[in-house]
Amino acid sequence: MHLYHGDIVYSENRETLKIFEDSYIAVENGLVEGIYPQIPDKFSGAEVTDYGRGLIIPAFSDLHVHASQFLQRGIGMDLLLNDWLNTYTFPQESHFADMDYAEPVYEAYVNDMIRHGTFHACIFATIHRPATNLLFKKLEEKGLRALVGKVNMDFQSPPYLCETTEESLRETEIFLEEHSGGTLVKPILTPRFAPTCSRELIWGLGKLGKKYKVGVQTHIVESRWEAAESLRLFPDCRSDSEIYEKAGLLGNGPSVFAHVIFPNEDDIRVMKEYDCTPVQCPDSTNNIIAGIMAVDRLQEKGLRVTLGCDIGGGQQNGIYRQCAASIKLSKLKEFYEPELGKTIDIANTFYMATKAGGEVFGNVGTFDPGFVFDALVIDNIEDEGHPMTPAQRLERFCYAGDDRNVTARYLNGTLL
Amino acid sequence: MHLYHGDIVYSENRETLKIFEDSYIAVENGLVEGIYPQIPDKFSGAEVTDYGRGLIIPAFSDLHVHASQFLQRGIGMDLLLNDWLNTYTFPQESHFADMDYAEPVYEAYVNDMIRHGTFHACIFATIHRPATNLLFKKLEEKGLRALVGKVNMDFQSPPYLCETTEESLRETEIFLEEHSGGTLVKPILTPRFAPTCSRELIWGLGKLGKKYKVGVQTHIVESRWEAAESLRLFPDCRSDSEIYEKAGLLGNGPSVFAHVIFPNEDDIRVMKEYDCTPVQCPDSTNNIIAGIMAVDRLQEKGLRVTLGCDIGGGQQNGIYRQCAASIKLSKLKEFYEPELGKTIDIANTFYMATKAGGEVFGNVGTFDPGFVFDALVIDNIEDEGHPMTPAQRLERFCYAGDDRNVTARYLNGTLL
Repeated sequence: MHLYHGDIVYSENRETLKIFEDSYIAVENGLVEGIYPQIPDKFSGAEVTDYGRGLIIPAFSDLHVHASQFLQRGIGMDLLLNDWLNTYTFPQESHFADMDYAEPVYEAYVNDMIRHGTFHACIFATIHRPATNLLFKKLEEKGLRALVGKVNMDFQSPPYLCETTEESLRETEIFLEEHSGGTLVKPILTPRFAPTCSRELIWGLGKLGKKYKVGVQTHIVESRWEAAESLRLFPDCRSDSEIYEKAGLLGNGPSVFAHVIFPNEDDIRVMKEYDCTPVQCPDSTNNIIAGIMAVDRLQEKGLRVTLGCDIGGGQQNGIYRQCAASIKLSKLKEFYEPELGKTIDIANTFYMATKAGGEVFGNVGTFDPGFVFDALVIDNIEDEGHPMTPAQRLERFCYAGDDRNVTARYLNGTLL
Repeated sequence: MHLYHGDIVYSENRETLKIFEDSYIAVENGLVEGIYPQIPDKFSGAEVTDYGRGLIIPAFSDLHVHASQFLQRGIGMDLLLNDWLNTYTFPQESHFADMDYAEPVYEAYVNDMIRHGTFHACIFATIHRPATNLLFKKLEEKGLRALVGKVNMDFQSPPYLCETTEESLRETEIFLEEHSGGTLVKPILTPRFAPTCSRELIWGLGKLGKKYKVGVQTHIVESRWEAAESLRLFPDCRSDSEIYEKAGLLGNGPSVFAHVIFPNEDDIRVMKEYDCTPVQCPDSTNNIIAGIMAVDRLQEKGLRVTLGCDIGGGQQNGIYRQCAASIKLSKLKEFYEPELGKTIDIANTFYMATKAGGEVFGNVGTFDPGFVFDALVIDNIEDEGHPMTPAQRLERFCYAGDDRNVTARYLNGTLL
């Protein structure tokens, strides 16, 4: 049993922050036992670590990121999406055929996510299985929780970054077999998106999903072009989402859909029926001029909306900054499309970034009893002589903080 | 004569970055003499400081910031503007009657602006002359360039932060007299905005402007409410800008207008006629749900559009981040109002942040010969083994950099 003292904050739901000022969180075998205003008699002999006025919050979950695009963060943002993909992204991803290229990039990415307090992530690698395994191994070695995908693309893709359908399915099956054991890092099927995947590939992945009981991550209705192109390519489907439903890819594990800017009623139906996880990537969706997700509308329909940094469309790790960016976008959504979305607040986006996101990875994201103590200490937020409430400190961290404010990190209950 | 070696980047105009890779900038008596690919024979004995692959760029200019709101950065962002003003801003500003309160806040603000490479700023203090003088003195002592305003408000303001018209004019005149000498820091008239200033006050300030040859800063058409309210209060004026024109406040020095989200044709006429400086404050305008300035449209009309961090509506110093935020907003402007604004790029927003902003303060903001060497060295941007072009490094700094990337600062040619 170990006790940690500080100002403990976590999400109850999208309306409410649970705030335990000047309190103790008891952790046993890496799991939260409870939160107490004073040290209870039963724990009088326990070790205590005192973080003073430090905020103790759950570590963040990043539901959409391309680790393979880590080198691209914050560059090429003036290009249109198509030029950005063809000038930067696709050539860059093709280098991951080379393990010597992949190794330092994945190492840097994983260290950076830890630095920013992201301990759970849903990650796109590239089409290359060996490099994807390398990323997988690095995440495992660090003790992080992740869903990692070898990307599939066999259609409308540049020749240097395109598989045959057969090769794509075969490599994917080997990848799934290689990771059949039960670790904190798990494989996830990762068709890039409908416009770069043949029907045969997507349906083949559906069979693998069922056989290996493994989920899927992809991009849906991320732009008007993508939404229309998917329906053009799959005219028998009523929505982008239905493609994955019909292929048998849903319901086998987590179904994580990035962007979801232009969902139609059928997308909503599918996402609800299969408990899919829509991911807002605020910086990215802004950088690639995609439009703005109607976060509150999707939440009102009962969907678990989460956040993603989406490097390299987004420019940085640090899901806390996406909490602020999501609020900013919701304000513009309401300004321009009041009938389609309302302003959301910090309680909501912090919920998306921790409890909602954490649900995809297991018992992480809150400090309810029995949850894993994946936690951050946030400090050096206040101005001298001007104490702030815990909620204010959390808000300032999300708007203006950086990794220097993350002064301690606990992963599976262990101090890093 | 001193030479500095690195990758030298500055703005020629809103389309073009001037890039001198692996070059030398010669500085004499604090002024730029020239830029050379090698050390010229004539300078063979000069001292050389080598920044290797460091970017050497002009220091930033912040054209709109409330130093008195420094403690508010990144908090209260979920409140509506009116609640934010009444809950946080006005009570907080009222404390600047107390010099003991003001001193550490202004000290922290000035240090933070330097840390982030902002060496020239147009600053709102509060209604309190003594504390405004304190800020003035701190800026002078550091050697920064600034226009500092004692705020005027005598109408529709909370009783604890409201002057009589007479008091406001008298204190302002004393303030102007106190600073009649020619330093790098100058006073500027600062009616908060039309809704909190009586006609008598604004017209009185116009007389002072003419008498002391001093410019004006205020907020215009910052929201639909403010635009309408100004015209309601001044029904003889065709635009928010015309209020200041008719009062005689324009043409006496720099006229700096923050926000300018909803200008009408007459605002444009006034701003052109008096060479006014519109300031976009991207984070702030987003946080307070004001709408998006049509930057490119104002530029096309020949206006010198600049950038401001607008703490505390904005959450942080660091005009480089506003370069990225401005691009993001321009993308949304084009997405939602393609007829009103187009996407702008990093060359443009860096121009706004340096050369355009610098023009208001004198010969700063570029490295053309004769300009003051107010400069920053930007480094630690690249990933190991993956060299980037100077333009890419500049872009990544603006999107994802922070003060740690500012590895050296030169103010008036002197290393800080």
